[in-house]
Amino acid sequence: MAGSGFGTIFRINTWGESHGEGVGVVIDGCPSGIPLSEAVVQEYLNRRRPGQTRYSTPRRENDRVVIQSGVFEGLTTGTPISMAVYNETQRSSDYSEIAGYYRPGHADFTFDAKYGFRDYRGGGRSSGRETIGRVAAGAVACALLRELGIEVFAYTASIGPVISNPASSLRENREKSPLFMLDLDASARAEDYLLETMRQQDSAGGIIECSVTGMPAGIGEPVFDKLDACLARAVFSVGAVKGFELGSGFGAASLRGSENNDCFLGTENGRAVKKTNHAGGILGGISDGSEIFFRAAVKPTPSIAKAQQTIMRDGSPITVNIRGRHDPVIVPRAVVVIEAMAALTLADALLAGMGSRMENVLNFAKSRAVRD
Amino acid sequence: MAGSGFGTIFRINTWGESHGEGVGVVIDGCPSGIPLSEAVVQEYLNRRRPGQTRYSTPRRENDRVVIQSGVFEGLTTGTPISMAVYNETQRSSDYSEIAGYYRPGHADFTFDAKYGFRDYRGGGRSSGRETIGRVAAGAVACALLRELGIEVFAYTASIGPVISNPASSLRENREKSPLFMLDLDASARAEDYLLETMRQQDSAGGIIECSVTGMPAGIGEPVFDKLDACLARAVFSVGAVKGFELGSGFGAASLRGSENNDCFLGTENGRAVKKTNHAGGILGGISDGSEIFFRAAVKPTPSIAKAQQTIMRDGSPITVNIRGRHDPVIVPRAVVVIEAMAALTLADALLAGMGSRMENVLNFAKSRAVRD
Amino acid sequence: MAGSGFGTIFRINTWGESHGEGVGVVIDGCPSGIPLSEAVVQEYLNRRRPGQTRYSTPRRENDRVVIQSGVFEGLTTGTPISMAVYNETQRSSDYSEIAGYYRPGHADFTFDAKYGFRDYRGGGRSSGRETIGRVAAGAVACALLRELGIEVFAYTASIGPVISNPASSLRENREKSPLFMLDLDASARAEDYLLETMRQQDSAGGIIECSVTGMPAGIGEPVFDKLDACLARAVFSVGAVKGFELGSGFGAASLRGSENNDCFLGTENGRAVKKTNHAGGILGGISDGSEIFFRAAVKPTPSIAKAQQTIMRDGSPITVNIRGRHDPVIVPRAVVVIEAMAALTLADALLAGMGSRMENVLNFAKSRAVRD
Amino acid sequence: MAGSGFGTIFRINTWGESHGEGVGVVIDGCPSGIPLSEAVVQEYLNRRRPGQTRYSTPRRENDRVVIQSGVFEGLTTGTPISMAVYNETQRSSDYSEIAGYYRPGHADFTFDAKYGFRDYRGGGRSSGRETIGRVAAGAVACALLRELGIEVFAYTASIGPVISNPASSLRENREKSPLFMLDLDASARAEDYLLETMRQQDSAGGIIECSVTGMPAGIGEPVFDKLDACLARAVFSVGAVKGFELGSGFGAASLRGSENNDCFLGTENGRAVKKTNHAGGILGGISDGSEIFFRAAVKPTPSIAKAQQTIMRDGSPITVNIRGRHDPVIVPRAVVVIEAMAALTLADALLAGMGSRMENVLNFAKSRAVRD
Repeated sequence: MAGSGFGTIFRINTWGESHGEGVGVVIDGCPSGIPLSEAVVQEYLNRRRPGQTRYSTPRRENDRVVIQSGVFEGLTTGTPISMAVYNETQRSSDYSEIAGYYRPGHADFTFDAKYGFRDYRGGGRSSGRETIGRVAAGAVACALLRELGIEVFAYTASIGPVISNPASSLRENREKSPLFMLDLDASARAEDYLLETMRQQDSAGGIIECSVTGMPAGIGEPVFDKLDACLARAVFSVGAVKGFELGSGFGAASLRGSENNDCFLGTENGRAVKKTNHAGGILGGISDGSEIFFRAAVKPTPSIAKAQQTIMRDGSPITVNIRGRHDPVIVPRAVVVIEAMAALTLADALLAGMGSRMENVLNFAKSRAVRD
Repeated sequence: MAGSGFGTIFRINTWGESHGEGVGVVIDGCPSGIPLSEAVVQEYLNRRRPGQTRYSTPRRENDRVVIQSGVFEGLTTGTPISMAVYNETQRSSDYSEIAGYYRPGHADFTFDAKYGFRDYRGGGRSSGRETIGRVAAGAVACALLRELGIEVFAYTASIGPVISNPASSLRENREKSPLFMLDLDASARAEDYLLETMRQQDSAGGIIECSVTGMPAGIGEPVFDKLDACLARAVFSVGAVKGFELGSGFGAASLRGSENNDCFLGTENGRAVKKTNHAGGILGGISDGSEIFFRAAVKPTPSIAKAQQTIMRDGSPITVNIRGRHDPVIVPRAVVVIEAMAALTLADALLAGMGSRMENVLNFAKSRAVRD
Repeated sequence: MAGSGFGTIFRINTWGESHGEGVGVVIDGCPSGIPLSEAVVQEYLNRRRPGQTRYSTPRRENDRVVIQSGVFEGLTTGTPISMAVYNETQRSSDYSEIAGYYRPGHADFTFDAKYGFRDYRGGGRSSGRETIGRVAAGAVACALLRELGIEVFAYTASIGPVISNPASSLRENREKSPLFMLDLDASARAEDYLLETMRQQDSAGGIIECSVTGMPAGIGEPVFDKLDACLARAVFSVGAVKGFELGSGFGAASLRGSENNDCFLGTENGRAVKKTNHAGGILGGISDGSEIFFRAAVKPTPSIAKAQQTIMRDGSPITVNIRGRHDPVIVPRAVVVIEAMAALTLADALLAGMGSRMENVLNFAKSRAVRD
Repeated sequence: MAGSGFGTIFRINTWGESHGEGVGVVIDGCPSGIPLSEAVVQEYLNRRRPGQTRYSTPRRENDRVVIQSGVFEGLTTGTPISMAVYNETQRSSDYSEIAGYYRPGHADFTFDAKYGFRDYRGGGRSSGRETIGRVAAGAVACALLRELGIEVFAYTASIGPVISNPASSLRENREKSPLFMLDLDASARAEDYLLETMRQQDSAGGIIECSVTGMPAGIGEPVFDKLDACLARAVFSVGAVKGFELGSGFGAASLRGSENNDCFLGTENGRAVKKTNHAGGILGGISDGSEIFFRAAVKPTPSIAKAQQTIMRDGSPITVNIRGRHDPVIVPRAVVVIEAMAALTLADALLAGMGSRMENVLNFAKSRAVRD
């Protein structure tokens, strides 16, 4: 089953394992005429690169992207864009130990159950390095959306029990916080929490929030391909995500209709102007033009040095301490991955919905009758 | 864009509006040889039928299903199964009023934004009646899963602020509660809450939980088609869902790795035996064979009689009281819809993953060489 | 496997067997705003209806179509269009005979090999009645194309050894010939050939040609979804088709490059003007705006009354004479089926390619910012 | 639109232009456990490599494949297999000339019409080098099929007017003929024809035949995804193909039913044994287990040195002589491309149809309950 593909019109396919030749992605269906260079993509990859703070793995990875096709004279051509990040050092670590047992919270057991065996080096295909392809493709999707005035902005909302105060949260703080939080006071407390967690040879989780502004109204499909359903799948396809909510989310369950409904006040450039936005910018699966807002829960990194009980491949019990350079928290590095998945979802929904009205089809056909 | 389809191998397409000829579904890709009759499907439809308690709309709808193809001599044939529920009474209500304004919390505005106009009678395609096709198809998916020993079981976990106590929850209580709750004491309190809500001409939301037992390990795809990602999309495609979480869900965000990891204790029939199940039965997007457990938040019904502010199609303001026979809460009727979406997702993942190992492909090819 | 679906954006799903409740189709992804009524669809269905001449089965089938959803106030709404033709008389024929043996040239054996058993009444799903859904959906695709000035026109080019002379072929002759030929003299000779064939209790095949005019240039995808590749699949998915060729077709194999190349002379409304059209209107998988021209070979009807040797389900030999009311030739009735498949292919390619240039995406997004 | 992908379960995505970094392919959905190495793939690529005879372009290209992921310890892992062939010499040719005009028979005009501009160096994405990805992926599909005892064998049947005599055709001759013909006498005459063609600065076409043996019965889907329809699309997606026919093909159009029907004689290992094979191994879209046999017409190479009339991008007329090292005939090099496309189609159909019977699904689920 071809499960490494995402999207219908703007479609990507990622490939690569932690310890193979490298990782990469092929984008098929990107429109022609978008300015694109390796520098644009690299900027996104740098945001997920490890080794930048003490809260991420100290592994040094440059993660230099190469664009191998689909761009000519600085513009996308409409043909597949292949991008790769090659592994610089073929790490020679001895993986015979983890090859023998199933790490708790990891996909070791389930890969064996599915495929009969697995590339156990560094997690193989279930390694976090798989997200490099997503981020590179997400950078291209963001470039497309930016041409339309659409911005995708994600950040860390909480780390373990430390929660940002929306009142003290400013977008310009994101790059000032080593954890990509908008509330610098909460960020400092989260750092303390993480240092304590690391001392205990343990790990932490957190919550990421994402906001999309500038969406036109009318994007998304009304039944199974609801825009929120597609976002839910996209975000949940990121390894450590355990929860997703849109707008008022789980809170909506205990509200009354009169509290949760958003009153319409008017329209502006075809977009709904509403008194509140409990809907999170999507009604009946279709964007209403207001801010799209969702949250994702990220579990604590499963690799911890603390002693854990598990089993060997033959079923016999064993106590393990997973050594190595692991992230005590992956939330900050996952922020750009969530942005990427949101951007890929929106770009695809936009392109897939271009023929929803006959008048748009007519305009398209007319544009073909005009020579450049 | 063909957004009314769901699934790759076991694929369904729903059709129909609230006030047209009827609603229906075509299942394409169902294996041959599954016992199926209208009675089996009807049982599921009856669980979502309105008019059974005072907490659902008093509209009388029999919702009799007709199987139109794909079944011969009591067995599925492998060809498309078309099922329809025809609207018995062409309701002659006057919809000119709601045609003119945008109901808060509904898809009126976004349908207009997407398609330029809409079938405004009873919500048209965004009506809850669209889920009839899902439930009918879900009944077939459940029949398939049952042959494999897989059971999908959903129930109401909370209504508004009234939450079931897991300690007092028993599966056999579900049919005893008019709200499909497992904790009968909570169910009684939820009824009180609903009566008060109805007196206030308002509506309520709630939370649905779903448990899947008997799953084999090794089902689901490791990257974008993770089993949990597919479940998230499936569940979020149900109109009023605002949140989805698997296993420890949003709670995982504040746990430490040593708390959230599930220790492996052994295996049984190829399934993982674990000390805990924070993972919710899925690791790295692939089933580990333990119980799959997820929760969905459902918003309060947007149609309320209470006065609300909104706008007309031309943008002018208006205050509306939405009359008619609306459900004060849709959670109980949505329980079987969530079961259906889960079953459809699992059946498709199972069939799509049959070729993950070459040994399975060889066994399949050999089976073709043997005459019946 | 969901093999009864066709298309990506303009997607159809057919259902139904020869002797069940009926046959039908669901179109998902049709743009809103196209005028549509049952009369428009019926006109196409009438062209494939049997019993109109002595060269088709004398079975009386009215094949009245019902549109069940997706049309409101005479216009498509953008939501699924469900159409059905119900079987008027549940034919009570005794099929126990054909249930026991494999008819030569039919799918009896292969259905059994695939599914383990089959609905043997009248061919079940492999019956020609399955094409009713295609033709109904094709009528809608033609309505869409006509709005863009695109016409799809197919006709019978030969019956058995009787070949139309292009020099005597006129489009307006098609409806004058009971065989839908454009050369009335050839049509008369083909009638003689058919009468002789029928006397011998045998059947005949033929060739259908199809011409598409008014296509914009730039439609189709350059690699696997080449417009000609999609047409080839679409046409070959019609039961009896054994060959497909585009433009100069098989003849191109023996030409030299200087003979087969079409010289460009200029452009007109964005379309190529060429000295010749050996390419058949498609270059590199993309329409060049000139006439799209292809041919399909249709095999003789496999059901014949003449004695044939075959085997029973248990492998034992038997000699059979297939009785019943079978078409001595299906070519004339297949003409509208070929038109339908071509129209479905082109409509989908048009819609799927709307986002090939960023400027088209920008124009679409801008259109969303304007209120109706 | 994502048109560079092929397949549903065994899915490939090719990328790359003639003059970029290189070309490649990602296979997603290949089962785990198939022995695979670069040597296996290289063998197929060598068969399409130019410069081996005087009838192909004298360009020297080594076309060394690199497997970048999805193989571990000599076996496929079930995760994406990325393969690339890097361009060794960044050719510095001056393409400013062909950038300005539209080459007859090429996709220059249609790419411009679709995308607004194009990478004109060496044909860009419409270059024959795009087929490298197909052949590399096809080598993997062939490895899969071989495990099941299925062999795909293609060869040149004719070059221009020179046609092989089936009676003198031997499979073992293929590698002895520089044109991959099975009739060595015809091959010698075809060489003469090609030398004369080259002297005239012209090019030639031909016909490729392909035979598949060892197919199980019951593979393929009955309606739109008929096995022959999928083969037709696959083969027609190869650049220069203008015709496709299965079994008796266009010849069937002039036969009578009694001549074209294949009588069943018995079964062997679940496969049909028939007196003849006009069906070409497929009935009702599903394999019957006998030899699958099809033919493809390949047009003469459009690049010729002979003077041709055409237009500039601005529409002004020009006479051109296309210089450079072009193949006078591409048929021999296309043989392995046709094999690849057939193998990819069959592998996907096999995997996609594994769940057609409930008994196969049950066996698969049981296999998951057994530990390795």
